[in-house]
Amino acid sequence: MNDRFLRACRREWTDCVPVWFMRQAGRYMEEYRAVRAKHSILEVCKTPELAAQVTLQPIERFPLDAAIIFADILLPLEPMGLRITFEEGEGPVIHNPVRTRADVDALRLVEGEELRFVAEAVRLARRALDGRVPLIGFAGAPFTLASYAIEGGASRHYLETKGLMYREPVVWHRLLDKLARVVTEYLKNQIRAGAQAVQLFDSWVGCLSPEDYREYVQPHVGLIFDGLKGENVPLIHFGTGTATLLELMREAGGTVIGVDWRVPLDEARRRLGPGVAIQGNLDPVVLLAPRHEIERRVESVLKQAGDEPGFIFNLGHGILPATPVENVQAAVELVHKLSQR
Amino acid sequence: MNDRFLRACRREWTDCVPVWFMRQAGRYMEEYRAVRAKHSILEVCKTPELAAQVTLQPIERFPLDAAIIFADILLPLEPMGLRITFEEGEGPVIHNPVRTRADVDALRLVEGEELRFVAEAVRLARRALDGRVPLIGFAGAPFTLASYAIEGGASRHYLETKGLMYREPVVWHRLLDKLARVVTEYLKNQIRAGAQAVQLFDSWVGCLSPEDYREYVQPHVGLIFDGLKGENVPLIHFGTGTATLLELMREAGGTVIGVDWRVPLDEARRRLGPGVAIQGNLDPVVLLAPRHEIERRVESVLKQAGDEPGFIFNLGHGILPATPVENVQAAVELVHKLSQR
Repeated sequence: MNDRFLRACRREWTDCVPVWFMRQAGRYMEEYRAVRAKHSILEVCKTPELAAQVTLQPIERFPLDAAIIFADILLPLEPMGLRITFEEGEGPVIHNPVRTRADVDALRLVEGEELRFVAEAVRLARRALDGRVPLIGFAGAPFTLASYAIEGGASRHYLETKGLMYREPVVWHRLLDKLARVVTEYLKNQIRAGAQAVQLFDSWVGCLSPEDYREYVQPHVGLIFDGLKGENVPLIHFGTGTATLLELMREAGGTVIGVDWRVPLDEARRRLGPGVAIQGNLDPVVLLAPRHEIERRVESVLKQAGDEPGFIFNLGHGILPATPVENVQAAVELVHKLSQR
Repeated sequence: MNDRFLRACRREWTDCVPVWFMRQAGRYMEEYRAVRAKHSILEVCKTPELAAQVTLQPIERFPLDAAIIFADILLPLEPMGLRITFEEGEGPVIHNPVRTRADVDALRLVEGEELRFVAEAVRLARRALDGRVPLIGFAGAPFTLASYAIEGGASRHYLETKGLMYREPVVWHRLLDKLARVVTEYLKNQIRAGAQAVQLFDSWVGCLSPEDYREYVQPHVGLIFDGLKGENVPLIHFGTGTATLLELMREAGGTVIGVDWRVPLDEARRRLGPGVAIQGNLDPVVLLAPRHEIERRVESVLKQAGDEPGFIFNLGHGILPATPVENVQAAVELVHKLSQR
């Protein structure tokens, strides 16, 4: 098996830097659009054969070093009791957002049975990958899930989310505790089904001050990582806009910390210390640029990462739908070529 | 005159910490909504009497330490050749966005005559303030203006903006150079009309990596601050999400650096050094929280700012429309009370 990715997660030397991309199975690929023309995103997620098929699409096409199971971070919210629809081009809509203590109390503590289709997709994808590259499982982190659950969808200012946090801290902590418990079980089930690493996406946590992160988020993320310690797989902890949260995220847990393009990787290394691996951080917009610019940027990321083990090349956030497929191909090849040891 | 604000900008001791809020004249105020019920935002901006009236509304109501002229950062783009409308609840729309070299070449280098109404509003507001508090002028910074001009409005990923930057760096630099020249003249005219300090809003520059900032933005911002050096008024340099850009922004210029809630003020002080004053950084969402929470947060901001001169209390971004007026009142009073020397 190509185990570059897992070795890099464990901070071991590899022949070259491993690379995978968030949202590497997505709208920018014709194969993916063909599946989505016939099935909604929720149908794909809930049909293990389709989810596994889509998971493998980028692996068939590019020399990536890891696959990530196809799913949506909001999946656990549905069996907890939220009604979610995905409007084309609008993003997710939650029709009964969580706003009160009663809403939080009504959320069910999902044990995993209701999300069995994800574990099954992991099993099928592992089998189909047949050892070519490792498979990553994932979940949304409590803050990011809470932000969707409370706002009822994506948000700009997180007014309702921070509002609940500031007005009803007890209710807030109950909500995050529930989400943390559900996420822990959900990730354990993915690992048991065959996920060889898991990533916790706290995509929107960068809207918080360090003070708020420490008080309202860190304990709950810590609960998840503590709960996964015995699982013996790499744990990736990712967020965007986290330049002032890095040390606190590291404290909360994870053996790999994912950062976006706003944080230079040498700075991330220095601040996070030698005990964790780093993942990141090309601006996804660069993949829409001309080839020479992509080359310059890939080189720059590799240079900032430095010639030491424990680095996984990725974007700072997901691949954008307008990305040309050939640029993804080029970027993956460049990472391998320019990082040869 | 209450000169706390100007003294703090110059890093002199004051009896207590001065405070003003970005967007302190805005939708959260009944008086403002009454004016806007009869006039569009562009009408208010272009009618000096109305702009001056709105500028003074928060000064009449709260014990603020500075007024800021009412205007919109996009005003200079209109005489440069862009057709702008403001759709209610949608934000600005630019109907002929800048995408090519020809578009950039067609932009007119406005000298100030076309924006005379702003200078006139400054004159009227100064007169109406009658020395009560200083008046701040302002402009959008080249990157933030360019992002609107290129995207055609607000943006999430800045695809077109970064796209132009990466694909056509020469065109990009021509555009930013033009914007920087226009902004310099525009700010000079505000100062000559009576603005006692000016703030450069680079609100969206936090979407860039430090590398991109240095290459594509810093020289142009530097041009503006160099051009204003002889004016002998405090120059405030503000952005959001700038945690990894602070030192570069400082290098570019400004005698006061504005930061948002993501950067703890003690860290900002340490990184920026003793040569500049700091402005910030309460999360605007806190002003929607219960009184005891507002008090706790104001106290925390003051504590992080430390007991040294050169601090101006502000939000990390503009006041949100849903903010209760009495909370603004409370916050202003708390800043003064809790920071008494």
